[in-house]
Formats: sequence, C-alpha cells, structure tokens
Amino acid sequence: MSLLVIGTVAFDAIETPFGKTDKIIGGAATYASMAASFFHPKINLVSVVGDDFPQDAITMMQKRGINTDGLQIKQGEKTFFWAGKYHEDMNTRDTLDTQLNVLSNFDPVIPEAYQDCEFLMLGNLMPSIQMSVIQRLKNRPKLIVMDTMNFWMEIAMEELIKTIAMVDVLTINDAEARQLTGEYSLVKAARKVLTMGPKYLIIKKGEHGALLFHENQVFFAPALPLEEVFDPTGAGDTFAGGFIGHLASTNSVSFESMKRAVIYGSAMASYCVEKFGLERIVSLNDEDVESRVQQFVDLVQFDIALV
Amino acid sequence: MSLLVIGTVAFDAIETPFGKTDKIIGGAATYASMAASFFHPKINLVSVVGDDFPQDAITMMQKRGINTDGLQIKQGEKTFFWAGKYHEDMNTRDTLDTQLNVLSNFDPVIPEAYQDCEFLMLGNLMPSIQMSVIQRLKNRPKLIVMDTMNFWMEIAMEELIKTIAMVDVLTINDAEARQLTGEYSLVKAARKVLTMGPKYLIIKKGEHGALLFHENQVFFAPALPLEEVFDPTGAGDTFAGGFIGHLASTNSVSFESMKRAVIYGSAMASYCVEKFGLERIVSLNDEDVESRVQQFVDLVQFDIALV
Repeated sequence: MSLLVIGTVAFDAIETPFGKTDKIIGGAATYASMAASFFHPKINLVSVVGDDFPQDAITMMQKRGINTDGLQIKQGEKTFFWAGKYHEDMNTRDTLDTQLNVLSNFDPVIPEAYQDCEFLMLGNLMPSIQMSVIQRLKNRPKLIVMDTMNFWMEIAMEELIKTIAMVDVLTINDAEARQLTGEYSLVKAARKVLTMGPKYLIIKKGEHGALLFHENQVFFAPALPLEEVFDPTGAGDTFAGGFIGHLASTNSVSFESMKRAVIYGSAMASYCVEKFGLERIVSLNDEDVESRVQQFVDLVQFDIALV
Repeated sequence: MSLLVIGTVAFDAIETPFGKTDKIIGGAATYASMAASFFHPKINLVSVVGDDFPQDAITMMQKRGINTDGLQIKQGEKTFFWAGKYHEDMNTRDTLDTQLNVLSNFDPVIPEAYQDCEFLMLGNLMPSIQMSVIQRLKNRPKLIVMDTMNFWMEIAMEELIKTIAMVDVLTINDAEARQLTGEYSLVKAARKVLTMGPKYLIIKKGEHGALLFHENQVFFAPALPLEEVFDPTGAGDTFAGGFIGHLASTNSVSFESMKRAVIYGSAMASYCVEKFGLERIVSLNDEDVESRVQQFVDLVQFDIALV
C-alpha cells in the first residue's frame, strides 16, 4: 500500500516582515511529501523540475523515504519559480513573480511501481493535471485528498469543479470556500461543497485553526497559538501531507481517524511556519511531532461531565 | 455566597444585515446577569436606569433570580442608549448614537445584603466605576472578572490600567489585547497582560473562539460554527456571564474549572448571537444549555493515544 503525492516541486523566493530568502526549495508536493514522510514509510512523488534543481534537494527527500522515480527532470528547462511577499498580518500576500517554466507543459507520468496507490494526495496544481493522475491510476485509490487554490477558481473553474467531483476530501481555506460556493457562512459553504462530490471538506483558517465537515458532523482543530508566525509558505501543503500521511499510516478513513489526522496535520503546519521554507520540517524528529501533538491535546482538552 | 454583577443596563437600537430593531433592552450587566442566572441562583445586580426603563424588563430579571435591589431608578432621567450598525462581515460595527443619560453621573451603591459577594463581575463600564465597586466591598471577593473595551483605552488608559491591576481575570477581544499591549502576537500580548495584575486573561476572538491564558498554560475554546450570526450584540457580556456564573456555581477558581467555564460561556454566547438582543437567551432552558455544551464537546473531542 502506498501514498502517492503529486504537486509542484519548486523554487520560492519569500519576503516576510522578518526577512527574505533567495531561491529556496518549495512546492506543494515537496511540503506535502516531506510532512507525510513522518507518518508513512512508502511515499511516491510525481512532479517535474528543470535541470537547475539541486540533486541535494532530491537526496533530502529520498533520505526521508520518498520515492522520486516519478519526479521528471527536464534537461535544458527551468524549475517552476514563485516569489511572494507577505503583509504585516501574515494572512495576506502579494505574488511578485511566477515563472511556470517546466510546469507549462507538465504531463505527469505514473511509474508502474506506483500503481499500488491507496492514498492519493493531489497537491495544488492545475485541476486538469490533478484529474489526469486519477485517470492514469488503474485502480481508484481508497482515498483521494485534493488541495487547490483561488487562482484555479478564477481561470479554470469548470475543470476545477469536475476534478472536485472525483475526490473524497477537499482542503481549501475560508476565503476559497466562500469564493467556490458564493456563501459567506462557512457552514452553508460546507453544505454546498458536500453536494459537489467530496464526502469530507476541510476548511483551513490559518491562525484560526481548521474545520472538518462530513455529513452533518463538524470537527474543529485549533491552530497552536504561536509567538510569531515566521513564514506561512507551505503551511497548507504541510497540513495536507501530515493529514493524509497519518491516515495512510493507520489505513483508516473513518471520521474518527480523520479527526486525529487533522490534529497531526495541524501539528506539522504549526512547525512549518516557525522558520523559512522547509527549514523547520527537515529539522524535526518523531519525538518533536509527538510532543507538538500533545500540545494540541492540552490546548483543547477539558472535562465536562454532562448529566 | 453571591455573585455580584455590575455594568450597564441600557436601551440598544441595532442594525444588522438581517434587520433592525427599535429600542430594545440591552446593556453589559443585563446580558451578563441573565447568562449567569442559568448557573447560579443568587445574582446581585448593581446598575442604573432612568424612569423610562420598563418594569417588565426588571421583572424578567427578577424571575430569573436576579436581585435588583442595587439597580437605581433615577426619576426624571433617561436610560443609557446605544445605537449601532454592523457591517456585512458582522465583525465590525459603527456606533450611530450614544446617549450616556443616567450613566454620566452614575455612583454605584452596594446594598448591605450584597456584601457577601465572593464572585464579582465587572461588566464593561468606566474603569473608575468598576474600581469603586471593588473599593466599596468590605471583603475582597474570591474572584474578580473584568470586561472592558477599546473605548476606555482611548479615553481613560491610566484608570483602566489601575483597575486591571486589581482583578483576577481580564476578558478582552483580540484587537483590544493588541491595543492594550502594543503587541501583535496574541501570545506576546497575553504575556504582557499577565504582568499587569490579572492571573488569567481571556482573549475573545468572536467567530474564531476564545483563548484562556494562565502562567505558561493556554486553553482554547472554539466558537460553534453557526449558519448565521444574526446579531453579535451582547455576545461578549453573555460569555462573561456564563463564565463567572459557572465558576460561582462550582465555587472553584482552578484552571481546570476555568476551562470548563470558558466552554459554558462560549455556549451561552453562541445562543446569544442567534437572535436580536436578549431574545434567544430568555427563551432558553437548562436542557438547551446542556445540549449546546455537548455540541462543544463533540466539536473538539478527539482521541489520540500518545506513546
């Protein structure tokens, strides 16, 4: 049984009120697979980079048990590049530069050895490419989790809706939930999304936590109150990776398992934002993850004996 | 042992995207004492109204076990009046009119029978008046909870700081925590407030829940995801009333009790916002309160067995 992660592998240049970076390693699939690697031993990556992408970064992923056979390296081409600047409140950002490069004609190839995929993470990417991965798997995975963003709602809503209809869990942020459904109330927005195909919806609210909706049930996971959010880049992807990684490790897709998985995803995301890029995630060990999860337990645990 | 509540008893005129009201009964002490009445049988009110205040409203409070001997009725004067309009997002509002009336020379009188006060709720009011109530009690209460707002930070910061230094629990919202301390990070803001006197700080984040800080501990209570917030007026006062009412009912001021009290306060506030003014609160019974608390339990409860 394996976990397949598709999404971007990229260079990012990030500016926050705390500092700025040169080109560092980023990308939705990088964050998601790295986060998932703390929970599941067999992660298969599908993505594309140019020949400017450092072998060190690929080795870093391989050392965490990530199979990179599905990572295409395009000779003579450049890796996808994104530059952004966060505002003072760290909740909003401006995109300063986007160079699609190898992404502009990305055609994902699924190695034969990846076909045992039972858990599929569709990291943020063109919806048509996300859909093609589902179609190229011979058997439908047990669970498909899809992350997306407002950008695709603006330029590819039709394909986005078709892709959303094929997945089990959709993860979007609060503004995207509102944009996708036209509903301001997140409860109403969730109800609409759950008629669009997914059986589960996770609405990410950044520093305000995350909501998991399923049928008439709702679960809330807080964000850990942090002294500073240093760099929010990749937090959503890290959340998704921790979420599906934990589910794959338990091989369960029950609502109870999903609640726990949301906590594990939140714990990984809370680490992610503490430093630039992947810096904090690569420094972690299993004990760090468990101690952060314990902080979440302590944060919300109360004991009320109802009559 | 009694719970003393001081604060405004007022007329409000409210406009939200869902409708508008004529003059209805409002005021911090009204909401707080009504909410507390669901938990504690002996609530003593100190406030002031004019002779335009309806006897019906006083009877309503008395029927819920609220002692109104400390409610001064000023003949020939008018009750405090506030009119406000909420914006589309329901998180921000404009004050349309404020008529201090009887509040402009309010001198709180503590009836002798109120002197057994062990739990004191200082509802939002001029800090100097809040302080005078502490000074007029012969024995310091076991627990003093103080609510305040940005307005006093702008016009009476010095008195506000002095009053804050005398209380055990301060309840403010996130914007007010930032304004009071000059810290954007709520964790840093909380650390500063806890050096100013209070041993506990509750930061109310509206639809994003509430944080309880004590020493190096933090507890988070979510807000219930509601389809619509109909009218946020009084939600903070209702929260505070439910919070101190629950504590008074258990006669405990431990951190564990405070966590439960934050949940009870949140449950009451979640009802408050469902209709205009006090309408929803007055319609509740004890079973409604318990079933709403159970929704909070279900909302955040998860089971992680850590190694």
